Amino acid sequence: MPTLEEIAGALGRPVLGDGTITFRRAAEPSVAGPDDLALAMSEAYADALRSSQARIAILWDGADPTEFGLDGAITVTRARLAMARLTGALDRWPEWGAGIHPTAVVAEDARLGPGTVVGAHAVIGPRVSIGAKAAIGPQVCIEADARIGDDALIHARVTIGARVTIGDRFICQPGAVIGGDGFSFVTPEESRVEQARASLGSEVGAGAQSWTRIHSLGAVAIGDDVEVGANATIDRGTVEDTRIGRGTKIDNLVHIGHNLKIGEDCLICGQVGFAGSTVVGDRVVLAGQVGVSDNIEIGDDVVAGGASKIFRRVRSGEVLWGNPAQKMETEVGLQKALRRLPRWGQQLAELRAARKETGDG
Amino acid sequence: MPTLEEIAGALGRPVLGDGTITFRRAAEPSVAGPDDLALAMSEAYADALRSSQARIAILWDGADPTEFGLDGAITVTRARLAMARLTGALDRWPEWGAGIHPTAVVAEDARLGPGTVVGAHAVIGPRVSIGAKAAIGPQVCIEADARIGDDALIHARVTIGARVTIGDRFICQPGAVIGGDGFSFVTPEESRVEQARASLGSEVGAGAQSWTRIHSLGAVAIGDDVEVGANATIDRGTVEDTRIGRGTKIDNLVHIGHNLKIGEDCLICGQVGFAGSTVVGDRVVLAGQVGVSDNIEIGDDVVAGGASKIFRRVRSGEVLWGNPAQKMETEVGLQKALRRLPRWGQQLAELRAARKETGDG
Amino acid sequence: MPTLEEIAGALGRPVLGDGTITFRRAAEPSVAGPDDLALAMSEAYADALRSSQARIAILWDGADPTEFGLDGAITVTRARLAMARLTGALDRWPEWGAGIHPTAVVAEDARLGPGTVVGAHAVIGPRVSIGAKAAIGPQVCIEADARIGDDALIHARVTIGARVTIGDRFICQPGAVIGGDGFSFVTPEESRVEQARASLGSEVGAGAQSWTRIHSLGAVAIGDDVEVGANATIDRGTVEDTRIGRGTKIDNLVHIGHNLKIGEDCLICGQVGFAGSTVVGDRVVLAGQVGVSDNIEIGDDVVAGGASKIFRRVRSGEVLWGNPAQKMETEVGLQKALRRLPRWGQQLAELRAARKETGDG
Repeated sequence: MPTLEEIAGALGRPVLGDGTITFRRAAEPSVAGPDDLALAMSEAYADALRSSQARIAILWDGADPTEFGLDGAITVTRARLAMARLTGALDRWPEWGAGIHPTAVVAEDARLGPGTVVGAHAVIGPRVSIGAKAAIGPQVCIEADARIGDDALIHARVTIGARVTIGDRFICQPGAVIGGDGFSFVTPEESRVEQARASLGSEVGAGAQSWTRIHSLGAVAIGDDVEVGANATIDRGTVEDTRIGRGTKIDNLVHIGHNLKIGEDCLICGQVGFAGSTVVGDRVVLAGQVGVSDNIEIGDDVVAGGASKIFRRVRSGEVLWGNPAQKMETEVGLQKALRRLPRWGQQLAELRAARKETGDG
Repeated sequence: MPTLEEIAGALGRPVLGDGTITFRRAAEPSVAGPDDLALAMSEAYADALRSSQARIAILWDGADPTEFGLDGAITVTRARLAMARLTGALDRWPEWGAGIHPTAVVAEDARLGPGTVVGAHAVIGPRVSIGAKAAIGPQVCIEADARIGDDALIHARVTIGARVTIGDRFICQPGAVIGGDGFSFVTPEESRVEQARASLGSEVGAGAQSWTRIHSLGAVAIGDDVEVGANATIDRGTVEDTRIGRGTKIDNLVHIGHNLKIGEDCLICGQVGFAGSTVVGDRVVLAGQVGVSDNIEIGDDVVAGGASKIFRRVRSGEVLWGNPAQKMETEVGLQKALRRLPRWGQQLAELRAARKETGDG
Repeated sequence: MPTLEEIAGALGRPVLGDGTITFRRAAEPSVAGPDDLALAMSEAYADALRSSQARIAILWDGADPTEFGLDGAITVTRARLAMARLTGALDRWPEWGAGIHPTAVVAEDARLGPGTVVGAHAVIGPRVSIGAKAAIGPQVCIEADARIGDDALIHARVTIGARVTIGDRFICQPGAVIGGDGFSFVTPEESRVEQARASLGSEVGAGAQSWTRIHSLGAVAIGDDVEVGANATIDRGTVEDTRIGRGTKIDNLVHIGHNLKIGEDCLICGQVGFAGSTVVGDRVVLAGQVGVSDNIEIGDDVVAGGASKIFRRVRSGEVLWGNPAQKMETEVGLQKALRRLPRWGQQLAELRAARKETGDG
């Protein structure tokens, strides 16, 4: 069991009171027992803390532990950052055993760095290279010639396709598929989709067409410190690799099409989808269910609100919302106007009626 | 092969005619052969039934089997409820063998109840507890300390993370991931997203930022009689568990973020997504592709139409639709107004032109 | 290493210059090295090609290889079609070994055609039938009585449920689930959803309800030449099979509900979702994140733009966009009007003020 002192070390803050007290788990003040560390990093928890059974706590900056009858405490300034350090210190490592599980199928010419663990029923293909101290979960499949850096944490049932390259400290949640084939088809004749795009939908002929596959010769290239969520999918590029920049975090069920180039330190939330060949800058933040059209360019430092659908080029620094996505202040203005729209319709009808009456028309 | 009498028992209704007739499968009247049970639970099937080869049928309330030349029939009042009972009686159990498959990897200290089946290449981690008569499909992965109740039916390739707890009669479709890590990151400085939220998008500074991970110490706690769809994902909580209440049904590709508290008897349809830390009441029904923002509260008995995007607190009993979601009648009114909008624009221009003409301006 | 001549054969075009030159990979002109084949199928690449190190290239129709200092070239007319043939010729086959991997679990009564490969840790159930020259990837699960045609390419970790039937030349990306149970529930009493639909949301009673499962007795029936994307899900039908017609291509994370009937040669892009029991015609193209309501009919040759939400019957040949989806030209008109809406509001207010002033009101 960890001590309060150890946590203080992780947080880089002094202990107020007794640092030797151990605890079973961190918990909110209202449910924390006498063996727990209460998390009360904002003054909103003050009342709950007063009636809490906890003897030790993490408190907001300026709080006085003695006021709450605590035997030990640590105060912190930025709560979410403290949460990052605290949870990092308390997180438990998966129990996948040591070394290569006897049921794993590892190609003879695959190279695994020292300290790397491979779980039960994992499959590691020819010439795969994995760095040191990586943890490869049960039932993971890593195909031929893939290269993964040091300190990877790849959870159960992830698939990493042939020739995919990934940097250091990669974290991947279960079920993600990195390196599926791109969705790219062509018809021998100009297709109805091409016609619809060219004519904005006004002239589209019918008629038979069937789809011929454009194969994906490229792979996926992922930088250092990237995370990928559960059941997310990242497709390989057609000729060059699909690219995900250093530090970018990708949430569950995100779909990243072929040929995407995504920059560094982006945050891509749950169920976001990118059609193919789009270029995304650095530090872009897309909220859940955002959709991004194909073959467009998204600049740096773009932020898009939940469920925004982006159909056009976005300049660096723009903050977007809506479907179709537009500058957030424009969208907020539009939504205000829409709330008034039924009343405006009535007012317009009144004006027209009045005009008729006065014989203006 | 089942007899008509057995089905009558499952439906709690008497047989009209010969109950000893057996059948190969249930089928719509138009495709049912002489060995099939025709399903004609509404009068709309009357014509198809007249020309059907079927000798036995399930009919709507009040129908006369002799009119259709049937040798046996059962009439039912509520068709969909009858379908539930009928399909339950006819469904076939997966063929995963008996006991623990020799290729499954089961930790020595895992405890499995009597009658529980574990399929090929499944992996069951340390101290896992599974109740009686559970069926764990091929290639399922259940990680350390997870606890699952009696009568579970967990299909192939499901992942259940460490310390997840699940009640009795759990049904889970292939590929679902229960207990991936939450998507929660923080920047050392205030992030551009926090600024965008605070200023509604009007003032956001650029500049470098990289993301520090908030680990997920909590697990997922799921009540009795819950179902989870194929490739759906449910993330663990940061400190407390993410919670899914008794009787709630979750469809394919649904994303449930960290710290969600979802109530009982909810129906969450395909591709719905919840951002983190939202609280959802009981008997909530969300149609396909609905999105729910983070940190909001959805009351009991809420219904949201397809693709609604919910950005605000929703009171119990509200029926919502649209993006952003609003009361359904307001949304329906808005959509009517929008259809008239181009015409209104024209009328407005006419009024303005007339006013100029008459010298009012 | 392939020769330029071999590629010319695949493209059905003559070599200009030296066809015996071999190359390591295809690449864009700007990154192509002296051992690479430069892809410059449009004049836009002319400048990049001039400074490229490549000695051989695929060029646009009418280009003169000597102008770019190339030793060999092929010119093509339709670039995307040429890409299909070129990438098909250069794609590499997965390295899953030959025959049945010793760790695969194949039922004694399963039948596999000649030349079929089964990867490590795959599970093939009782009475499964797979045609000739199929490649079944690692950790794939194919359940009892499923039938798959010749030349299938089924990537790692795909699940194919019991009794599913699939034609020839099936291609399936990792993690797809074909044949999960449909999401179909009923309440003993009329449910609040049924009430909300009937009353368009105006009258819905509260009160307890819990969900009874309608089991899925049907399977999924898939035609020849179908592709399914990574982590996509296709549910089985309630009584009859869910159907996907010949030549239809389905992208990543698509959700296809129970009882769908999808026609031939459709293109269903990433994250599209279909609620149950809808009928879709031939050659329908749905862009990413489109949603389709349950129990409606979509005709042939329909095209829907990104994130369209389709709530109504769609006639053959319609081109749709928006939420709710409408004819694309109507939607484009609406979006134009919406951009003017705040200004219209102001103009309306001015007219009303002027009218008050002139004493008309």
